[in-house]
Amino acid sequence: MSGCPLSVEGMASVLPASNKSMKSDRNTNVGKKFVHVQNPYLDLMDEDILYHFALGTKTHNLPVMFGDVKFVCVGGSSNRMKAFALRMHKELGCEGDGEEMKDICAGTDRFCMYKTGPVLSISHGMGVPSISVMLHELIKLLYHAQCCDVTIFRIGTSGGIGIEPGSVVITDTAVDSFFKPRFEQVIMDSIVTRSTELDRDLAEELFTCSKDFPHFPTLIGHTMCTDDFYEGQGRLDGALCSYSREKKLDYLKRAYKAGVRNIEMECTVFAAICGRCGIKVLNFHVNMRQLKIPWSSMP
Amino acid sequence: MSGCPLSVEGMASVLPASNKSMKSDRNTNVGKKFVHVQNPYLDLMDEDILYHFALGTKTHNLPVMFGDVKFVCVGGSSNRMKAFALRMHKELGCEGDGEEMKDICAGTDRFCMYKTGPVLSISHGMGVPSISVMLHELIKLLYHAQCCDVTIFRIGTSGGIGIEPGSVVITDTAVDSFFKPRFEQVIMDSIVTRSTELDRDLAEELFTCSKDFPHFPTLIGHTMCTDDFYEGQGRLDGALCSYSREKKLDYLKRAYKAGVRNIEMECTVFAAICGRCGIKVLNFHVNMRQLKIPWSSMP
Repeated sequence: MSGCPLSVEGMASVLPASNKSMKSDRNTNVGKKFVHVQNPYLDLMDEDILYHFALGTKTHNLPVMFGDVKFVCVGGSSNRMKAFALRMHKELGCEGDGEEMKDICAGTDRFCMYKTGPVLSISHGMGVPSISVMLHELIKLLYHAQCCDVTIFRIGTSGGIGIEPGSVVITDTAVDSFFKPRFEQVIMDSIVTRSTELDRDLAEELFTCSKDFPHFPTLIGHTMCTDDFYEGQGRLDGALCSYSREKKLDYLKRAYKAGVRNIEMECTVFAAICGRCGIKVLNFHVNMRQLKIPWSSMP
Repeated sequence: MSGCPLSVEGMASVLPASNKSMKSDRNTNVGKKFVHVQNPYLDLMDEDILYHFALGTKTHNLPVMFGDVKFVCVGGSSNRMKAFALRMHKELGCEGDGEEMKDICAGTDRFCMYKTGPVLSISHGMGVPSISVMLHELIKLLYHAQCCDVTIFRIGTSGGIGIEPGSVVITDTAVDSFFKPRFEQVIMDSIVTRSTELDRDLAEELFTCSKDFPHFPTLIGHTMCTDDFYEGQGRLDGALCSYSREKKLDYLKRAYKAGVRNIEMECTVFAAICGRCGIKVLNFHVNMRQLKIPWSSMP
């Protein structure tokens, strides 16, 4: 087993312990926690079409296809999520080399999806609206498939603030551009503020696992979600830039002081939607570049 | 020539007339309007890497590759944008059947890009953050390539409000979920409100062209941009739905009264970013389904 912090060994060691506490949860069925939706209209529908997955309740036997799913790993890039699925296939010791794995969403180019054993690997594109579409349909898929005790991991790359390149940040709190732990969901013409709480026990357990892999420096910190890669993150290399380098550094230093260790573009809605459907989630990223501030300049 | 409203004939008839007025523009060079950026740092950079295109100023000769681009067509789906490029290739009478056209962004899976003659066809994924990343890098690409007199078209499908399925909506005004013609750009922890004005002359010219294709009912109207496909658009089939069917219908009727004829997820930022860089843009969509309100129930 290589020192991969995304390994099934790591996941297996994290999850059973966390799931023990579910036995006392209200939403149980013989100790199992089923995925639920919060939409009274859904069960009244004759057919539910998951448009952006090219799947549906009449055209596909979702319980047979997905009923055994326990771990869902989501990330922005379709190539990476295919590579992740192949890696899982190998780690799980599944038959074959995995090359025969088909994209379950081949009928559309919006997202890609691969399944190996109890692990589902799905891409979600970039930004809150894109992952939001995917999460609505993923949660409905898990609900229709009668999945239970599911954990969703969001994995990917991000821009670090004041941390070493290549380090892994496990998110304890997802915050917005104003360093607040909230997601402002626009529902038609109303704004509803939702909690972006993540499962701290799960974060701590993954952090404990990470100690076995010292060549991947790992820390727990706040992750900031922006709606824009360039101006939103204070970058100086977009088509538009109306602020100074000093203003950018000031913002990033304030973010660091507020506990932010990395920036990406999806974590708040990920925490908000999954939280409302009672699904445990974990958000962690490898910081590919020291994009923001030299480590030495941090307060 | 088939009755395709996206035809090169259509575009050709639209653009020269519109470009005439550019001669009096301040930002001209022998009557040409070059694409510009609004970022004083950009020219100071040794190298500009267009991360999400897998292109760069040191690794690629952008003026040679893209200097003749006049029309950029963008849309969410990569498959559709490839199909569009193939169609353009055929309509323009370019050599070969187009099957040899390569994805210029093959080095990444974030977006795809095809070029045929003066037409560039690019995908942008779903939602404001995703198209925003693409637009920043597209405008920098056009700037580095010294392109002039460029028009960008956003084409795609959308959900119609009180209009016939299959009809085409040409956007005159891009509005947000509150029916306001504005885009709220978060720049670090500040919110800046930007105009979402579109080129009305261009919209009118395309509308005039559409009269030659009566089997595509076409109208000019406001297009609403939401950050969410489910709750944002009042859908009753998401994983989360906390409102009634009546509340949804009330919202959509109010949208119709405010002039909104279709809903999608990118138009406000498309208008805002391109507008700030002085690029003419046109936003038009085919409404694939009568998703929202029965035509007969409209006021």
